[in-house]
This record gives sequence, C-alpha cells and structure tokens, in this order.
Amino acid sequence: MNTEKEQKEIEEKWQTERLEKQINFIREMDKEKFIGRQTYLSDGKRKENDAEHAWHLALMTLLLSEYANEKIDTLKTMTMVLFHDVVEIDAGDTYAYDEEGKKTQAQREQKAAERLYGLLPEDQGAKLKAIWEEFEAKNTPESRFAHTMDNLQPVILNAATDGKAWKEHQVRLSQFMGRQEDTPKGSETLWRYEWEKLVKPFLENGTIRGDE
Amino acid sequence: MNTEKEQKEIEEKWQTERLEKQINFIREMDKEKFIGRQTYLSDGKRKENDAEHAWHLALMTLLLSEYANEKIDTLKTMTMVLFHDVVEIDAGDTYAYDEEGKKTQAQREQKAAERLYGLLPEDQGAKLKAIWEEFEAKNTPESRFAHTMDNLQPVILNAATDGKAWKEHQVRLSQFMGRQEDTPKGSETLWRYEWEKLVKPFLENGTIRGDE
Repeated sequence: MNTEKEQKEIEEKWQTERLEKQINFIREMDKEKFIGRQTYLSDGKRKENDAEHAWHLALMTLLLSEYANEKIDTLKTMTMVLFHDVVEIDAGDTYAYDEEGKKTQAQREQKAAERLYGLLPEDQGAKLKAIWEEFEAKNTPESRFAHTMDNLQPVILNAATDGKAWKEHQVRLSQFMGRQEDTPKGSETLWRYEWEKLVKPFLENGTIRGDE
Repeated sequence: MNTEKEQKEIEEKWQTERLEKQINFIREMDKEKFIGRQTYLSDGKRKENDAEHAWHLALMTLLLSEYANEKIDTLKTMTMVLFHDVVEIDAGDTYAYDEEGKKTQAQREQKAAERLYGLLPEDQGAKLKAIWEEFEAKNTPESRFAHTMDNLQPVILNAATDGKAWKEHQVRLSQFMGRQEDTPKGSETLWRYEWEKLVKPFLENGTIRGDE
C-alpha cells in the first residue's frame, strides 16, 4: 500500500507523461501548416494549406449545420473536419487526378494515422483515429456533412477568384461533378445553392467546360 | 392567407437570403488567412497567420480540456478560439508592445466585430459576437481556458524553434511573465508544464533574459 505522498507522486508522474504525449502531438500537428492544397485563397495570390482549410471547414460546420440532411452532432463534426487531413503530414496530399498516387493512397494514409494518433495517450488516439476512419467511410450523418463542407469550401474560394484554379486545371463539368458526388448526401440545400450560385455562372461563361 | 405554393416560395426565398448572408460571411472570413502573427512555425521558416493559429488552438482545446481548472463546455470554447482573432480582419494585429496602437485597439476591434458579425443572419451574428465579447472579458471558465490556449500555443512553437522569436525580440522575463499572466487562470496544470518544460530551459540558457 502506497502512502498518500507516494500515491501523489505516482499520479503526478502519470499526468506529466500523459501531457508530454499530448504536447508532442500538438507540436507534430504544426506540420499540417506546411501541406499545400490546389485551391487559391480569395485574393488569388497564393494557395491554401491544410490547416487553413481545416479552420475554414470548422467554422462552416458551426454556421451551416442547420442545413444538414440529417441531424448531426456539431462537436463531433467539427472535430472530424479539424483533423480530416492530418494523415497528409506523412502521406502527402494526393492530387485528385494523380492515378498512380491514388493506388497507394489508402495504405499510406492508414500507416500515417497509426503513427500520428499513436503519439497520443491511447484513449485519445483511438478516439481520433476512429473519427478519421468514420470520415473516410462516409456512412454516418456527421461524415456525410463533413464531406459536404470539404467539397463546398474550395468551390466558394474558386468562385471568389473568378475560377482561377478551374481555369488553370482546365476543369471539365464531368470532372467537377465526379468530385462533387458526395456533396448532396450531406446537404441537399447546400448542394442546390452551390450549383445555382457558385457553379452555373462559371459553366455559362465557359470557365468550367462542358463535355462534348 | 397564402396558398401552400406561395408559402413554400416565401420560405425558399427566406432560406436563400439567410444562406447568402452565411456564405458571404464565410467568404469574408478567408481574409483571416492574410493576417500575420509574430510566431514562427515549428520549422522556423515563416511566421504563422491567424487562421493557422486558430486551427491549432481548436485542436488543443479538444485535447487539453481535461486540464481546465473549472469544467468547460468544449464546443463553446472551440467556437471561441476559432473566431477569437477575426476582428483583426478590419482592426489589424496589434503587436503586444505597440503602445500607441493599443490605445485605440478596443475601439477598432469593437467596430470590426459590429461590421463582421453584422454580415451574418441576426441570430448567428449576435451569438458569435457575444462569444467574442466573453473571450475579451475573461470572466467565465471557457474564456479563461481559451486564453490559456492562446498563451500556451506560441510558447510551444517558440520552444520548438529554439526560441527564435524570443531571440529576435530580445524578450525579458518580466515581459514574458506579463503576457502569461492569465495562463494559470485557465489551467494551473498547463501553466506548470509550460513553465518547467518550455520556459525554464530558455531562461537557464539565456535565450529569455532575466531582469537586472
């Protein structure tokens, strides 16, 4: 039986080790800011990084959850979008049309999730890894809405820059629609708005090219 | 009395106007990514911006809320940190030692909050403005913990870059302690960890200079 003093020391040591792991993970997460995306910021000057993108999705989730097709847990969905890309710290950003890269993407990302969430105390790591897997599986109201946010946000920015990234990539409607396949599954209302206000004008003026 | 069809049209128009305001606000928020801070990222190559900083605070809040002195509402605290700096879109970042700028800071930020949150539908704008005011007033468990996050995060990054920003600003202990005054108010445990592991080594090796 430990004395009260010994017990206190054991608890403090445990707490310090737990906190050490959490702070290490938080430091590691900083690398999310180094990972570039294809979308230009609204001033058209530089492209966005993963941390900025995730921040934007989190505030969008808070503001737009009222349009979800199904009732969602806002805290869980915000957590999901805050962390949804962190596997790219190890696995890199796989560009949507990189067919070679996409073959190994799932495996690389799974390995990344194991290493990164393994830095955390077991309870927190397991919980966050499960939320990431839920995001990937897209089979819950929260994960469906998170994908709606993830798809809508770059469209808002592309529309704000007069379609700069669409022009650069010479995007065709069929490609665009392929990438937006999941958008209505999280919110019919947001998909309708996106189509009418942010996409159709760019299809009509030829920025997004029709498929012959 | 409206027919069912008329009623439906009125509701759709109302929803479109509401959503238009929300999307405009979300687009405006993108400017948060243009606002630079004084802290270097963990690779020491460039300085952080407000959106990256807020993203980091949100995930820290989720991971570290167990150390709060008082029980906190995690969703509310995450919302608070996600938005805490957005007034800087209009008011700019006021550097901690800019005495002239600080005289007009509160007034400039209040005006900014009115314009920015005024872009949103009234219910959402009022709620978010109140959460920002709560952050500024520092008189609730959530706002105290949010300030702990806001103070701890740059210290994690400064320690990771071997004190790069501290060296550049020739920071003295008294200045540092002045800026960390609120840190223990949100979490004694996190403040103790910060002091022992992230600050004391830099005081002992002379990076943070003692006060004669």
